[in-house]
Amino acid sequence: MPKQTIERALQHADTNLNASLDRLFQLLRIPSISCEPHYARQCREAASWLAHELSDIGFDASVRATIGNPVVVGHSKQATGPHVLFYGHYDVQPVEPLQEWESQPFEPTLRVQPNGETHIVARGASDDKGQLLTFIEACRAWNATTGSLPVGVSMLFEGEEESGSPSMEAFLDEFEHELLADVMLLCDTSLWNDAVPAITVMFRGLLEEEVRVTCADRDLHSGAYGNAARNPIQVLAELIASLRGRNGEVAIEGFYDNISELDSTVRDELLKLNFDTEQFLGAVGLSQSAGDISYSVMEQLWTRPSCEINGIAGGHCGVGLKTIIPSSAVAKVSFRLVDGQDPERIRSTFRNHIRARTPRDCKVQFAGLTGHPASFIQPRSPYLDCARAALKQEWGCDSVLIGSGGSIPIVNTVKRRLGLQSLPIGFARADNRHHSPNEKYDLYTFQKGIRSWIRILAELSRCTNDRIVSQPEQLGGGQYMNRQ
Amino acid sequence: MPKQTIERALQHADTNLNASLDRLFQLLRIPSISCEPHYARQCREAASWLAHELSDIGFDASVRATIGNPVVVGHSKQATGPHVLFYGHYDVQPVEPLQEWESQPFEPTLRVQPNGETHIVARGASDDKGQLLTFIEACRAWNATTGSLPVGVSMLFEGEEESGSPSMEAFLDEFEHELLADVMLLCDTSLWNDAVPAITVMFRGLLEEEVRVTCADRDLHSGAYGNAARNPIQVLAELIASLRGRNGEVAIEGFYDNISELDSTVRDELLKLNFDTEQFLGAVGLSQSAGDISYSVMEQLWTRPSCEINGIAGGHCGVGLKTIIPSSAVAKVSFRLVDGQDPERIRSTFRNHIRARTPRDCKVQFAGLTGHPASFIQPRSPYLDCARAALKQEWGCDSVLIGSGGSIPIVNTVKRRLGLQSLPIGFARADNRHHSPNEKYDLYTFQKGIRSWIRILAELSRCTNDRIVSQPEQLGGGQYMNRQ
Repeated sequence: MPKQTIERALQHADTNLNASLDRLFQLLRIPSISCEPHYARQCREAASWLAHELSDIGFDASVRATIGNPVVVGHSKQATGPHVLFYGHYDVQPVEPLQEWESQPFEPTLRVQPNGETHIVARGASDDKGQLLTFIEACRAWNATTGSLPVGVSMLFEGEEESGSPSMEAFLDEFEHELLADVMLLCDTSLWNDAVPAITVMFRGLLEEEVRVTCADRDLHSGAYGNAARNPIQVLAELIASLRGRNGEVAIEGFYDNISELDSTVRDELLKLNFDTEQFLGAVGLSQSAGDISYSVMEQLWTRPSCEINGIAGGHCGVGLKTIIPSSAVAKVSFRLVDGQDPERIRSTFRNHIRARTPRDCKVQFAGLTGHPASFIQPRSPYLDCARAALKQEWGCDSVLIGSGGSIPIVNTVKRRLGLQSLPIGFARADNRHHSPNEKYDLYTFQKGIRSWIRILAELSRCTNDRIVSQPEQLGGGQYMNRQ
Repeated sequence: MPKQTIERALQHADTNLNASLDRLFQLLRIPSISCEPHYARQCREAASWLAHELSDIGFDASVRATIGNPVVVGHSKQATGPHVLFYGHYDVQPVEPLQEWESQPFEPTLRVQPNGETHIVARGASDDKGQLLTFIEACRAWNATTGSLPVGVSMLFEGEEESGSPSMEAFLDEFEHELLADVMLLCDTSLWNDAVPAITVMFRGLLEEEVRVTCADRDLHSGAYGNAARNPIQVLAELIASLRGRNGEVAIEGFYDNISELDSTVRDELLKLNFDTEQFLGAVGLSQSAGDISYSVMEQLWTRPSCEINGIAGGHCGVGLKTIIPSSAVAKVSFRLVDGQDPERIRSTFRNHIRARTPRDCKVQFAGLTGHPASFIQPRSPYLDCARAALKQEWGCDSVLIGSGGSIPIVNTVKRRLGLQSLPIGFARADNRHHSPNEKYDLYTFQKGIRSWIRILAELSRCTNDRIVSQPEQLGGGQYMNRQ
C-alpha cells in the first residue's frame, strides 16, 4: 500500500478529530449501565447508535437481540485479504458514589489540565466507549479516503461486558458462521506509559460469588440479645478475615494448585519492563503492597490470582444509629484467576472453606455469579508482529508485551469457540479511573488510538494465512515516524 | 383509699378499653422516627398529640423545643402526697427492611392469633407508644372517676430515646426545678413472662462508635489492582474479627476492668428466675449462645458487657456485580456496658485496639456517637415495695426483679442530675419484636398495663418521704386478687 494512502487516512482523522469527539460525546451521553436492569432501554439505545454509525461508514450492521442486552454486528463490504473481527463493549459500570463526581457522569466534559493535557470526563470515556470509537474512527478515515478498508473487518459490540458477558456464549453459538476471522482485535487495554504502546498478552480470569450469612430469623434488639445471639456481621467478618493469610496470600486450601508456568517469551519481556511499584501504588494514595509478599507487585497483579471483597452490607449504616443485631449480612467476593485455575473448582474450594468455618447456628448461602478462566495470547504470531510494526511507526518506539490483572472474557471465549487468537491493543492510561468516579480518557490518546488503528489495519493487510507478505513500498515506516 | 374507689377506676378503664385503643392507633399512625432527620416534622406532631391528650385529662401540658426533637412536659394539678415523674418516649426506630413487614408499619393493625391472642402490630406498638399510653390511660381512668389522681404526677416524654437521648441532659439542666419528684416511673421494660410482672433493676449502658477504614484515595478496578492494593473491606473484616476471642469474649484489652460486683439482693432474686436459655434463643431461630462461654446466657445479657456490630457497608452490594476495591468501608459498633464501666474509657480502649491493628497504609477514622453508663436501681426502697404490692394485687403473684440487656439512658441521667431513683415497670413481652419488622404489643398486656398502673398509683399514695404509710382500708388487696 502506498505510503501516501496511509498518510491521507491519517490526515483525514486528524482534520476531523472534532467530529470524532462529537460522536464520542453522543455515545457517552447514553447511560448504558449493564448491571442495573432498569437501564436496559439505554443499553438498547447505545446499541442502535453504534449500528447506525457502522452503517454510516459502509458496514452492513444490525442490532441482534439476546436474552440480555443486544449485540451489534457489522461487516465491511469488501472480502479480500485477511479478515479481522473487532470486539468492543458499549456497556459501562455503575456510577455510584455519585457525590464524588466533579461533573455528571453522563454529561461528558472536556477538562484541560494544568499540565496542558485534555481529559474527556464521563463514565465509559475510556472503558470502553472512547477506546472502541478509536477503531470505528480509523475505519471511517479509511472509508472516507479510499472508499474501502485495507482488510476485511467485522465488528462485534456487546452490552454486558461489565456484567461478565452472560449472553455471549449463546450468541457465539448462534452466529459463529458470521464471526469467523483470522484474528480478533480489541481495544479495552492500556498503554504501557504515555510514550510506549503495549499489547496485552495475558488476562486474569474472574469468578464472582455472593455469600450471605443468616443467624436469627429476624433483626434483634442489640440490648436484649447482645452477647447471646450470634451476630452475622461478626461471623461474616471472621470468614472474610480467614481468606487472607499473614503474608497477604490467599489462605484457601488448594487455591494455588495447578497454576501454569509462565511462557518464557512473555517472562523475558516482562522482566524488561521495570515496573515502578512506588509510582503505581502512589498514584492512588497507597505506599505498601497488600498481596503475597513473596511476589513483586507486577507479579501479584498479572501472574498471581487474587481474592477481593467487592462489597459488604448488613444492618443499618445510614444516618443515626439503629441498635440491632441484623438477621443476615452479605458480601460479594471475586477472584481473579490465572492460567491453570478452573473457575468451578475454585468456586467449590471457596465454598468449602466458608462452610467449614461457619458456626453451627448460622446458615450460609451462596449465589454463584460469573466465572471464566484466565486468557493467554500466543506471543509468536504474524498478526502480532504486524501490529507491533504499525505501532512502532506511529509511536516511534518498540511496543511492549504486558499482562493485565483484569479480565476480558471474550478473549478466552473466542479462542475456545472460534479458534481465534486475539490482539488486545489499547490506548488507556493507568490513571483513567476505570470503574471509579471521574473516569476520563485523554484526548491525546484518543487521537493516537485512531492513528494507530489506521496503521495497524494497513500493516495487517500484509498478513495472509499466518504469514507476512512483504510489501516493500510500505517499509520505511520507521523513517516516516522519525520525521514526525 | 377505699377499695371501691380503685375498683371504679379499674372498671372505667376496662369499659373504655376500645377508646384507649383508638388513641393508641392515632399515636402509632405518626411515623416519629428520630434517627432519620427528615421525620422531624412527624416527631413534632407526635409531641403535640401527647400534649393535647395530657391537657385533655387535666394536665398542665406543653411541648418544649430542644435543639433536637421536642420534649413534652405535663403536670397534674393536685400537689399533695408523693409526687411521681413518669418518663416515656414517643420516638421510634426506623422500619427497614420494609419488605419484611406484613402490614404497613405506620398503619396499626389488630391481628387475632390462632391461639386467641390479639396483637397490635405497628412500629412503636410496644416500644414505647403502647407502653407509655398504659400510664396515660391509667391517669385518665383516675381522672374520670375521681376528678383527680392518687399522687402528684409529672410527665416527661422525649423524642430521641432511640437516638441516644442527645438533648436530654441540656433539657434537664434547664427544667430541673420543674421535674423534681420522689421517684421516676417508666414503662419501657418487659414482663418476666405472660403471668409474672417484673421490675427491672439494672440496665446496660450503651456506647456507639462508627469506624471507617480508607485505603486508596478512590475506588479501584479489582482486576487492575487486586492483590496489590489494600482492600478496606478486608481490613475492616480483620479488625472486626479481632474484637471477639475464641470463647466469645470481647477481646479488647482492659475491656472487663473495673466491673462492679452484683448487689447480693439482686443476685439472689436472679438466681431464682430459672432463665430458659433454650426457649430464649429458640424463639428467634437460634440454638447456641455466641457470648462468653464462661457465663450463662442470662449473665451474658444482663451482667456482662457486649460488643456488637450493628451495621457494615462498603463497595457495591446492589444488584449485579461491580468489580471494585472500594476506597473505604464503614461499620457501626456498639457496646453494652455494665456497672463500673466508664463509656469514655471504653471508647478510647476500643480506638486504641483498632488503631494498633490497622495496617500502616490505611487511614482509620472514628465518629463517636452516644455513650452512657449502665444503670442500677436500688432494690431496697419503699416505692419499689409499694409497686410490688400493687402488681401482686393485679397479677395474683409476686413480681420479680430482673435485669435488662438494653439501655434506658434516662434512668442514669435522672439519678445523677435529680437524685431520682427509678421504677421501671413494663408490660412488653419478649417476643414483641422491638426494633424489628412486625413489632407488636399484646392487647391483653395493654389492658393489664393500664390496670397495673391504676393500682400502682393508689399504692404509691401510701409512700411519703421514703416511708410507707399504712392504709388499713387498702390491705387485703391479696384477698381481692385471689377472688379474680
